Amino acid sequence: MNLRIQDILEYVADPAMPIEPTVDKLEYGNPDSTVKGVVVTFLATQEVINKSKDLGVNLIITHEGIFYSHWDKREMLKTDPVYLQKRQTIEESKIAIFRLHDRIHKRTPDGIAKGLLQFLEWQDYEVKNLPAASILTIPETSLEEAILHVKKRLGLKFVRYFGDPKMICRRIGLLAGYRGGGELVIPLLEKESLDLVIYGEGPEWETPEYIRDAVQQGKNKALIVLGHAESEMPGMEYLAQKLQEKFSSIPIYFLSQKSVFQIF
Amino acid sequence: MNLRIQDILEYVADPAMPIEPTVDKLEYGNPDSTVKGVVVTFLATQEVINKSKDLGVNLIITHEGIFYSHWDKREMLKTDPVYLQKRQTIEESKIAIFRLHDRIHKRTPDGIAKGLLQFLEWQDYEVKNLPAASILTIPETSLEEAILHVKKRLGLKFVRYFGDPKMICRRIGLLAGYRGGGELVIPLLEKESLDLVIYGEGPEWETPEYIRDAVQQGKNKALIVLGHAESEMPGMEYLAQKLQEKFSSIPIYFLSQKSVFQIF
Repeated sequence: MNLRIQDILEYVADPAMPIEPTVDKLEYGNPDSTVKGVVVTFLATQEVINKSKDLGVNLIITHEGIFYSHWDKREMLKTDPVYLQKRQTIEESKIAIFRLHDRIHKRTPDGIAKGLLQFLEWQDYEVKNLPAASILTIPETSLEEAILHVKKRLGLKFVRYFGDPKMICRRIGLLAGYRGGGELVIPLLEKESLDLVIYGEGPEWETPEYIRDAVQQGKNKALIVLGHAESEMPGMEYLAQKLQEKFSSIPIYFLSQKSVFQIF
Repeated sequence: MNLRIQDILEYVADPAMPIEPTVDKLEYGNPDSTVKGVVVTFLATQEVINKSKDLGVNLIITHEGIFYSHWDKREMLKTDPVYLQKRQTIEESKIAIFRLHDRIHKRTPDGIAKGLLQFLEWQDYEVKNLPAASILTIPETSLEEAILHVKKRLGLKFVRYFGDPKMICRRIGLLAGYRGGGELVIPLLEKESLDLVIYGEGPEWETPEYIRDAVQQGKNKALIVLGHAESEMPGMEYLAQKLQEKFSSIPIYFLSQKSVFQIF
């Protein structure tokens, strides 16, 4: 039986889910084409597209926008050489690209958050599943041990953190992606009696400065910042696993990215 | 002669400069009070306020908002224990606090950007001064040498970067604070033929992913991310120096913050 791109998309992005406006869309390709293979990734970088060609797939499912903008504002890029070369690679490859952002976050539970929880092997510790955060009660562990666990499970070379490495953590708020902002996290710290917040990315002058003040006041608070991609890749890898279980007749690959930053 | 708080504020924040809306305001204190001493800082943290009490000053000039929000949204904090304790410390201290954000950025040249340039000792290399960026042409240097220079001059334990440490840099775009976004930086890279961008903070899926793709395409591009506070503290320290020159009869201190993040 021939599997069409549309069949895959209906499985990963429930068309009955009402989301407007949405960034989810088939950016390139024809929904009626037969699927030869699928690459799932956090962001279809130039490298991911090159590798996808080598793998012989004809569909890439990407979480973030391929042209450096959440809302896909391409106006500024019209004459940009990096954009033009990437676009040419995509067009010549004939690979379809689907952006899957809103419809994986809006699942219950959030598909990206669920993948992160699975990869951290903390799913049994989740005591509350909020639309933008998982609340966990873990066995008592030091901040240092929590950092080592997170780095090992997610394969990270470094994390940024604030707090006393010896501090004992029990209540954790876990937020994937760009959910580290103060308006979301600060009320959660109080309401959920969190010791430790772990998020992907957020403004530096909001939650981190709150945690700094809290620690200065003698309160038991700490923060680990994973990085945006680092916090959302597990969710996309989890999706790739589910997709392979569902569609066993075609090859499905998860392509990870190295951290976009190194430390010096 | 008695110096009033208002006299200091008129010097640091030109009242004739039309900026609406603005976050600049005297958050606490009476403009007619006599100034005993001034602390200048990037952010009046709990620690900065405690130290200011010890120093016996009665005016703090802070660049960023003291309650974890650019627009000073305090509604979410009404019952928050960290907020309440910090507010109590401020009120009991009787220290005036002035937020100086827009009126230092809107100077020509931007006072924060100018301080960063001075601290980097790169002022002679500036070839263009844009409202949100300095364009520099430096003698040929490797990315690694540029990183070492920046870390040494700003006293940083680490920076995040992307690029080949051996890459030769000549054209630099330098952007203090939260000016790392793609809509600002990406057109600048092309228009100004930049090899290297150095900014304070910005969304991870925009400029960094553009630089990653550019490098993958074989282009000579690199990125150094300083941190928000790390990039704006020099501008406030520079202001403190100017203030001390102008008002030599009162003690003026610059209080720096450690980086809000450590690396593990």
